[in-house]
Amino acid sequence: MESVRGEHIAVGTEILLGQILNGHAQAISRAFAEQGMFLYRHTAVGDNLERIVDALREASHRANVVIVTGGLGPTADDLTREAMAAHLDRRLIASETAEREIEAYFAGRGRPMPEENRKQALLIEGGIHLPNPNGTAPGQYVSADGVHYFLLPGPPLEMNPMLVHHVMPKLRALFPREQVLVSRTLHFCGIGESSVDEQIPHLLSGSNPTVAPLASEGEMMLRITAAAATVDAARQQIAPIEAELRSRFSPFIYGVDGDTLPVAVGRALTARGETLAAAESCTGGLLSSMITSVPGASAYFLGGCVAYANPVKERVLGVAAQTLQSHGAVSEATAIEMAHGVRELCGSTFGIATTGIAGPDGGTTDKPVGLVYVAIAGPDERRAFRLQLRGSREQIRLRAAKQLLWRLWRAVERSPQSP
Amino acid sequence: MESVRGEHIAVGTEILLGQILNGHAQAISRAFAEQGMFLYRHTAVGDNLERIVDALREASHRANVVIVTGGLGPTADDLTREAMAAHLDRRLIASETAEREIEAYFAGRGRPMPEENRKQALLIEGGIHLPNPNGTAPGQYVSADGVHYFLLPGPPLEMNPMLVHHVMPKLRALFPREQVLVSRTLHFCGIGESSVDEQIPHLLSGSNPTVAPLASEGEMMLRITAAAATVDAARQQIAPIEAELRSRFSPFIYGVDGDTLPVAVGRALTARGETLAAAESCTGGLLSSMITSVPGASAYFLGGCVAYANPVKERVLGVAAQTLQSHGAVSEATAIEMAHGVRELCGSTFGIATTGIAGPDGGTTDKPVGLVYVAIAGPDERRAFRLQLRGSREQIRLRAAKQLLWRLWRAVERSPQSP
Repeated sequence: MESVRGEHIAVGTEILLGQILNGHAQAISRAFAEQGMFLYRHTAVGDNLERIVDALREASHRANVVIVTGGLGPTADDLTREAMAAHLDRRLIASETAEREIEAYFAGRGRPMPEENRKQALLIEGGIHLPNPNGTAPGQYVSADGVHYFLLPGPPLEMNPMLVHHVMPKLRALFPREQVLVSRTLHFCGIGESSVDEQIPHLLSGSNPTVAPLASEGEMMLRITAAAATVDAARQQIAPIEAELRSRFSPFIYGVDGDTLPVAVGRALTARGETLAAAESCTGGLLSSMITSVPGASAYFLGGCVAYANPVKERVLGVAAQTLQSHGAVSEATAIEMAHGVRELCGSTFGIATTGIAGPDGGTTDKPVGLVYVAIAGPDERRAFRLQLRGSREQIRLRAAKQLLWRLWRAVERSPQSP
Repeated sequence: MESVRGEHIAVGTEILLGQILNGHAQAISRAFAEQGMFLYRHTAVGDNLERIVDALREASHRANVVIVTGGLGPTADDLTREAMAAHLDRRLIASETAEREIEAYFAGRGRPMPEENRKQALLIEGGIHLPNPNGTAPGQYVSADGVHYFLLPGPPLEMNPMLVHHVMPKLRALFPREQVLVSRTLHFCGIGESSVDEQIPHLLSGSNPTVAPLASEGEMMLRITAAAATVDAARQQIAPIEAELRSRFSPFIYGVDGDTLPVAVGRALTARGETLAAAESCTGGLLSSMITSVPGASAYFLGGCVAYANPVKERVLGVAAQTLQSHGAVSEATAIEMAHGVRELCGSTFGIATTGIAGPDGGTTDKPVGLVYVAIAGPDERRAFRLQLRGSREQIRLRAAKQLLWRLWRAVERSPQSP
């Protein structure tokens, strides 16, 4: 039984100039992965006949499914049809169906079809026309020498519906007994990728399910992927791997799949009917911004204070002048008083705080750039943590915020859940 | 004189599964285009030795510059180093410099270097180590058979600085140009791209200098690019174009080149010795986070309040209960009282405020999603502005913050500068 070996080719000089992002590569990869199919390569080439033909020829040697996006417009720059005809050594033939469809598209807008759009109705000899209700560029499907080619228009609002309604059903029909591929992603914070990896070499070297580490800024993920005859069977293969990972790394696994730290924190607070307020110095609003990026955050996030200047720390958060004088703004004592102060100010269950040196300037030998204290004040206890972070100003701020959110998530999870 | 024929290869199965977007292809294309260099192809392949080697071999037949991103991590999945060694038939040699750099990275976090990270210090024989201050994966440069290869780490916060500080300067040295290409970018806010474009067709159709519009979230840029024998001559070609644009669009042009709205606001405040505080409802910390993303922002930004819940608006910012009752939290009156309140609270020259409905839920017929009031309170006046914004929650928050920063920039610029 043959399985899909797919490739995507994006055509368009604007992609190679960096003027637009090649989002189709991601959209098509996702649609394939959901069906247990796989793209083995993405390519982007410019609006140049020879280079498009080269890309098609190379892909045809490796793949049995080639999806091409872009280059189907009406201008002299749009060369995908011509390149495909040259690659297969076939003629381009005017399609009456396609021509009527383009005329109807213009008629619906009260305009006659411009002569130059007639070019868009040219079909590769032996090809099948794929209707495009959202634009003037019809798609095409053509099969040659065991390779299935799909040509789709570049504008996302035209390409995406055609992918869903024409390409994926056709591929499911062409490759009927493909196994399903099911993935589950576990999100880690508070532990380094290498520390995780060195504990699970036996999982990382497995072939079905596979376990793949993915690094992200200040956190990491492990993706477990199983191939099986049914979704249920694949899930049963994933379950014991997930159970082993949870038994090893439970305190560090804050979520699965689409979760983020702010989502995990919000879910833990909501389950207990608890609320949160934030006091920020070095993160300067970033922490609150991450928390409030989650729709519905107003149910548990009351607000907070960006206390950049010391007088604001004193006046708004009630940090003692004595604390600032003897310990400094960047200190465990200040962090704890900030967290406590914002909790009192907003009347929340938990108060959290950051104070540190994000750089690039302002560091000293005692308190170097990257030194950040984060604190959590709850109903039962107040705790501060000392972090020494590396990287740019942006990285230090983001990593401090994530480290604090992870510790908050743990603190909330440990508190009793309301019935 | 040889010109650059560049290609980019992204390595990572997560890209082919559609889990992450191949943003590096765009970033590198843009950096090349700014230097008058060009990428002729983007390729993405998975974490598979043979396929990476194939991609390198193919690129080496077409290109004289190949930039590879990803696959430099410490795990068994990270195969870019090995693939490059196989492609060039060279050995991998432990680099003491790279090893010390990785050890220092871990030492800075108070940890010994895990054994598996030693692999990251392996350098292609004859290659040059490119330092990565923001992570554990050093980059590499190696030249062979007329092709210049650059291997860069996958995480964007590591890759981007290395592109700017190591790759582009090296390429400028390797490919000196007869003509220099000089660009100047003007940053616009408060005016739409089509309104700008329709006033300057004669500039947009020019060939030297060229004027290219670049859209960005909530703002736009015009990039003027001139080619000439010397930098001075190119600048003289740019000057009259810039003068014309400034005479047409002066209130909307807040900055040039690397400027951002927070940078422009900071510069205007600093020049006058003035200070700022921010009160945020719908932007939830994003506005303060943008302001404090600028190094040295503590010189003019005192702090502020994220007043998500109404009691926080009343208690911390002194918004009258009567105002909230009769006008609602999302109103001109509330915005003005928030801006005034945060100015008093922090003792700053200017206070700014946002209150609105970022969505996706919470909209009504009277106050739909995207309705945002922003306000500025200064020494002389208090003003609010009603915005009706479109897009996702994230877009509405970002656009509201930018619209307010642009109005603040104008308000500060109009106030007298201290001598």
